[in-house]
Amino acid sequence: MTSLLLNADMGESFGPWVMGLDHEVMPHVDLANVACGFHASDPDVIRMTVRLARKHGVTVGAHPAYPDMVGFGRRSMACSPEEIENLVLYQAGALAGLCRAEGLSVGYLKPHGALYNDMMRDPEILAAVMRALVAYDASLPLMVMATRDNGPARELAARHGVSLWFEAFADRAYDGEGRLVSRRETGSVHHDPEVIVDQARRIARGEPLIARDGSELILEADTLCVHGDNADSIAAIKAIRAALAEEAAR
Amino acid sequence: MTSLLLNADMGESFGPWVMGLDHEVMPHVDLANVACGFHASDPDVIRMTVRLARKHGVTVGAHPAYPDMVGFGRRSMACSPEEIENLVLYQAGALAGLCRAEGLSVGYLKPHGALYNDMMRDPEILAAVMRALVAYDASLPLMVMATRDNGPARELAARHGVSLWFEAFADRAYDGEGRLVSRRETGSVHHDPEVIVDQARRIARGEPLIARDGSELILEADTLCVHGDNADSIAAIKAIRAALAEEAAR
Amino acid sequence: MTSLLLNADMGESFGPWVMGLDHEVMPHVDLANVACGFHASDPDVIRMTVRLARKHGVTVGAHPAYPDMVGFGRRSMACSPEEIENLVLYQAGALAGLCRAEGLSVGYLKPHGALYNDMMRDPEILAAVMRALVAYDASLPLMVMATRDNGPARELAARHGVSLWFEAFADRAYDGEGRLVSRRETGSVHHDPEVIVDQARRIARGEPLIARDGSELILEADTLCVHGDNADSIAAIKAIRAALAEEAAR
Amino acid sequence: MTSLLLNADMGESFGPWVMGLDHEVMPHVDLANVACGFHASDPDVIRMTVRLARKHGVTVGAHPAYPDMVGFGRRSMACSPEEIENLVLYQAGALAGLCRAEGLSVGYLKPHGALYNDMMRDPEILAAVMRALVAYDASLPLMVMATRDNGPARELAARHGVSLWFEAFADRAYDGEGRLVSRRETGSVHHDPEVIVDQARRIARGEPLIARDGSELILEADTLCVHGDNADSIAAIKAIRAALAEEAAR
Repeated sequence: MTSLLLNADMGESFGPWVMGLDHEVMPHVDLANVACGFHASDPDVIRMTVRLARKHGVTVGAHPAYPDMVGFGRRSMACSPEEIENLVLYQAGALAGLCRAEGLSVGYLKPHGALYNDMMRDPEILAAVMRALVAYDASLPLMVMATRDNGPARELAARHGVSLWFEAFADRAYDGEGRLVSRRETGSVHHDPEVIVDQARRIARGEPLIARDGSELILEADTLCVHGDNADSIAAIKAIRAALAEEAAR
Repeated sequence: MTSLLLNADMGESFGPWVMGLDHEVMPHVDLANVACGFHASDPDVIRMTVRLARKHGVTVGAHPAYPDMVGFGRRSMACSPEEIENLVLYQAGALAGLCRAEGLSVGYLKPHGALYNDMMRDPEILAAVMRALVAYDASLPLMVMATRDNGPARELAARHGVSLWFEAFADRAYDGEGRLVSRRETGSVHHDPEVIVDQARRIARGEPLIARDGSELILEADTLCVHGDNADSIAAIKAIRAALAEEAAR
Repeated sequence: MTSLLLNADMGESFGPWVMGLDHEVMPHVDLANVACGFHASDPDVIRMTVRLARKHGVTVGAHPAYPDMVGFGRRSMACSPEEIENLVLYQAGALAGLCRAEGLSVGYLKPHGALYNDMMRDPEILAAVMRALVAYDASLPLMVMATRDNGPARELAARHGVSLWFEAFADRAYDGEGRLVSRRETGSVHHDPEVIVDQARRIARGEPLIARDGSELILEADTLCVHGDNADSIAAIKAIRAALAEEAAR
Repeated sequence: MTSLLLNADMGESFGPWVMGLDHEVMPHVDLANVACGFHASDPDVIRMTVRLARKHGVTVGAHPAYPDMVGFGRRSMACSPEEIENLVLYQAGALAGLCRAEGLSVGYLKPHGALYNDMMRDPEILAAVMRALVAYDASLPLMVMATRDNGPARELAARHGVSLWFEAFADRAYDGEGRLVSRRETGSVHHDPEVIVDQARRIARGEPLIARDGSELILEADTLCVHGDNADSIAAIKAIRAALAEEAAR
């Protein structure tokens, strides 16, 4: 049995502004989603982040976004599919430029924030992201969200010749379709470490979660998204890591 | 005898703003210095420019700059060597990302505007650019300005394991050290097509120019920088091209 | 009878990039919608534009936009009402800062591009713009689009204590609701000078246009939006100006 | 005897990135130097900062900078005097736009970072800043650095009709000319609260400091610059405040 990989957003500092506890997260994850300078990061932050990933043997993924620093890439923008294709290529390439200086290369692609949400909602945008990926390097996986039915994403990916990594969340509540419950609703984010670890174990085992509407929800996932914002979330990462190691060893 | 290659700045449009007659210049040059999004260009402009270069068999070079769109990269900025190294890597990589989508790769590096001038004036900055190039791909040439004495640049390049392309200008007056006379001085820019073509021929033959101080100046150059701003400059490019072809055929 | 005022977008150059024939348009309009640095313009361009407006006795209006230079403010962005309120205040104030240096002040507000369209479509966004206007200077008019029924906009404006200027277009086809036919449809933009001048006269007289669906459409308008992109559009401005002067003299 | 006013940089957050303990600093200072969006801050951050200043009766000052978010306005840029004049006007106006929404206005001007340093070093840049101030509102004071000889700045100010506020630092070592010792040198920044408070008292009393070269240095100052980065600096602000209140009551 293959354990779930842990992925975390990294390199989200910008100029003089620090965000995230990258040094504490990096030792405990497999995949670093590195901001590429459109919603966060800059050439110096990217360089440091890539160097840190190399030190810990973590795979670097491109984490491109809409061009919106103030909004941190969380505000949807009406970009055309061609614009999206090109801004993904630009950002993946920029990250790759700094990876080369550290003897690494970009290992996968995970769009950020509003671009990620838009891609999951709009097949035309997902197709644009896939075209960018294929044009850049068809061998790289694209990370997308696991939902109740991964089929449509798989079909589109097969048509483009793209391989997918499905990601799930251990600390978020899901609705009946297998989508994340909005952060604005109470109970959407789990804070209890036991609940988080239990959800991680269930996803790893292929066991059902209980969705918001009471239905059973099985998520087929390759990776879990974890966060490194504060001490609690670092503790959660370690607890998830330990639980997944146990699962893998069973 | 090898003819001089012609290089021109390209992809200097930005969003809705058009600059340069790229479609008219591209068929007549060998090397396209493509803006990388810090002083001009954006992902869509880069894509179009790279596509145009591919169509005409023109080699694409990275043309990185200080981060200054308003100032078009022409205002010197007090960036540290590390910052310069990283912003060159970022921009070269970003361009390479869009090149991959067109089946091309970045063929050389030529810093733009104030970064180019600062690099020619300050060995620490030149060394930072060279470190970026070596980290990115040590096989790519760096374009620098030919002066009366190319020795110091050659030495620094040899120490970094970098190959150089020296560029000269057919339409600019030189001072006694082999540096361009400032545009603010009268007579600094040649407008007479005969003068321009004659200067191109002299550089191609290794014959001396007459510098501003009356001294003879021999420039050892690999490439001539040409401009595609308007109809006159397009005509100049064609005239230079024809003259160089004649020289090569002699 | 009051003649229609002519308004035009101005100050849309940026750094080294020139857009629009501001020097040729300014003598023939009443209202200059000056870009404020978020979709176009920069402090130097604003200064020149304001100076030009002063020279010709043209009223300067703030033309704020979403923060999107590459997309020229034409891409809708999911900004919150509070964000919109504040970005309008920021941009209006920035323009006012440069106006003070030329002895002028901001005379009205007209949002640009996607922000304008979003405001016409979404009352929550329109209310945010109105709150910004009232907070800035409640005596300034807000320019909005005249449609078949100006009532809802008038009501919202009355509730906020805002006065409105309704604008119409002489060179665009309207649909049955009095909205502009999308530029993507054929026949959406009039190019025949006679058609344009006739439409301007009808709007000035309060006579009906024929909408795309064949219905009669009366637009109650205070101002006509004109464009200064090229020689043809400058000629159209002059022809409209002459026609409106005739109407006013009748 | 008038006590020294305390000024602090504020509103240096940007989008999702937080910087500075503005809520803890604001109650203890007189003057808030508010970032205007070129080196830090955004319309929402400015709005919150201005609101906070109003709540505590603190005077808002414009803190304009070179356009360089990544470098936080700390990297000198070769802007022309005209560019500097206009970017100061733009930023002061933008801040004023948000001040109006809170019933405040801009009370003074203090350039930030590299622009401040360049202004203190180059009379042409200082004159450009003064022209901007006079064009914006000649009644507003300009904050500049107190040095051993405030005469040259006073003369230039008198010629432009500008009033000056001289600022000094309680936590920095001075060289013999009354300039700050570079942060790169050891001992340039005082950390001992007693040393800091003693230096504040001396400046308030017009008593000499001991400069780095051993000479006595009297700084004629109107205001002290304090910092709100961390708990220690907040404690230092309170200690300085208390000491200055004692001095004023003597």
